[in-house]
Amino acid sequence: MRYLIYYSYDGKDFNGYQKQNGLRTIQEELEKALKFINAGVDTVVTASGRTDKGVHANLAAAHFDLSVDITEYKLKRALNSNLPDDIHVISAQMVDNQFHARYMVKEKEYKYYLNMGEYNPTRRFYEYQYCKMLDVQEIENAIKYFKGEHNFKSFTPNKDRRNNYVRTINDCYIEVIGNTLIFTFRGNGFLKYQIRNMVGYLIRVGEHKKRKEDIPKILEKKDRKCASITAHPEGLYLNKVVY
Amino acid sequence: MRYLIYYSYDGKDFNGYQKQNGLRTIQEELEKALKFINAGVDTVVTASGRTDKGVHANLAAAHFDLSVDITEYKLKRALNSNLPDDIHVISAQMVDNQFHARYMVKEKEYKYYLNMGEYNPTRRFYEYQYCKMLDVQEIENAIKYFKGEHNFKSFTPNKDRRNNYVRTINDCYIEVIGNTLIFTFRGNGFLKYQIRNMVGYLIRVGEHKKRKEDIPKILEKKDRKCASITAHPEGLYLNKVVY
Repeated sequence: MRYLIYYSYDGKDFNGYQKQNGLRTIQEELEKALKFINAGVDTVVTASGRTDKGVHANLAAAHFDLSVDITEYKLKRALNSNLPDDIHVISAQMVDNQFHARYMVKEKEYKYYLNMGEYNPTRRFYEYQYCKMLDVQEIENAIKYFKGEHNFKSFTPNKDRRNNYVRTINDCYIEVIGNTLIFTFRGNGFLKYQIRNMVGYLIRVGEHKKRKEDIPKILEKKDRKCASITAHPEGLYLNKVVY
Repeated sequence: MRYLIYYSYDGKDFNGYQKQNGLRTIQEELEKALKFINAGVDTVVTASGRTDKGVHANLAAAHFDLSVDITEYKLKRALNSNLPDDIHVISAQMVDNQFHARYMVKEKEYKYYLNMGEYNPTRRFYEYQYCKMLDVQEIENAIKYFKGEHNFKSFTPNKDRRNNYVRTINDCYIEVIGNTLIFTFRGNGFLKYQIRNMVGYLIRVGEHKKRKEDIPKILEKKDRKCASITAHPEGLYLNKVVY
């Protein structure tokens, strides 16, 4: 039986999503809990995608197959009692055997939180403590350049080799709540570090150190060296996955 | 020269404010940083009050005397570079030698955050993960009984001996933002565990396990056993100190 789960996690104490020998990862914790539930059978979890070290998720998704018969409600409860406090299963549902948590993603939404106010110790792992004012209006105008279908090779590490760097950003915008600047990106998929690299560039625009008008040229160059910094991971949240 | 500082902290990894041999406390960290700044001279910090293990502060206050000559701006900077990441000095100012951070408090404001929605891993140390709905209307009616001058002995541990258990709550109310229930209490001072014990009782009222109308009788009894549970520390923030 194939199951789809939606889950959240605090990325602070994880070395990202993907399994790595000897390091604490989300995938490893999920598979450990599932092996216990699945009568000791090794159970591979396929997630909607990976997140980097320190990045959080409010609503991530994954699928896996179980050989035991278990109701959706009991599976949620069993997972949560076998998972550590920093991962939480929000829902579990049975799905068709053809369902695939990565290939079938229609849209993903990411949010990035940046504190422009006084350093906040209780938020230091949960939003980027930038602690200076940015030209928010300029960022608002700049972020529009990322909307639509583009080749985002300049916003992913040069050593990250793949066939296709074209992605579509369906929507992206910023909001300001108090001193917190919140970036939202919705798209069909994102390259490694793409959001943190776009946010990094936008921060430089907000500092008047980079120009918004250069974004189309940088996209054209298809070279990471043409863009700018990578924003810190702790501000980033995978906020939603839509199938 | 006497200085007043306002500061914030993440209470998660502290054993409360007050110095205790061998345990990590806010007072100890402040005094360690000040000794370094104050040319190696032991420097006693007098805070607006204590907070318990796990409780946070958005704006706490303290005073101390320095023998070195240092500007307010440089003191703030020196403290922040000598303090760990989970304490942050917001401002430092010179004050009269008669100023006293504890005796001169006019009002303190505390906030308590309770999550009535789905368990949130990134907030597990920063709001109480209650994760069930409460009768918010009933709590709103109940909290009014605490307003004004009362003997709060029933809301502090029986073993906590002092001369005077009478305190004045200038204002107290609740707000709901999303699934978060936020309690605010403002008063001239609070007894040990008083806020967490009042919130504990209010949670029981919201569960229909205690009655709001009994609060006056419980206050009259002056006995902790008549009240109810103590709410978890992680939801509590010292939010403001007014002189």
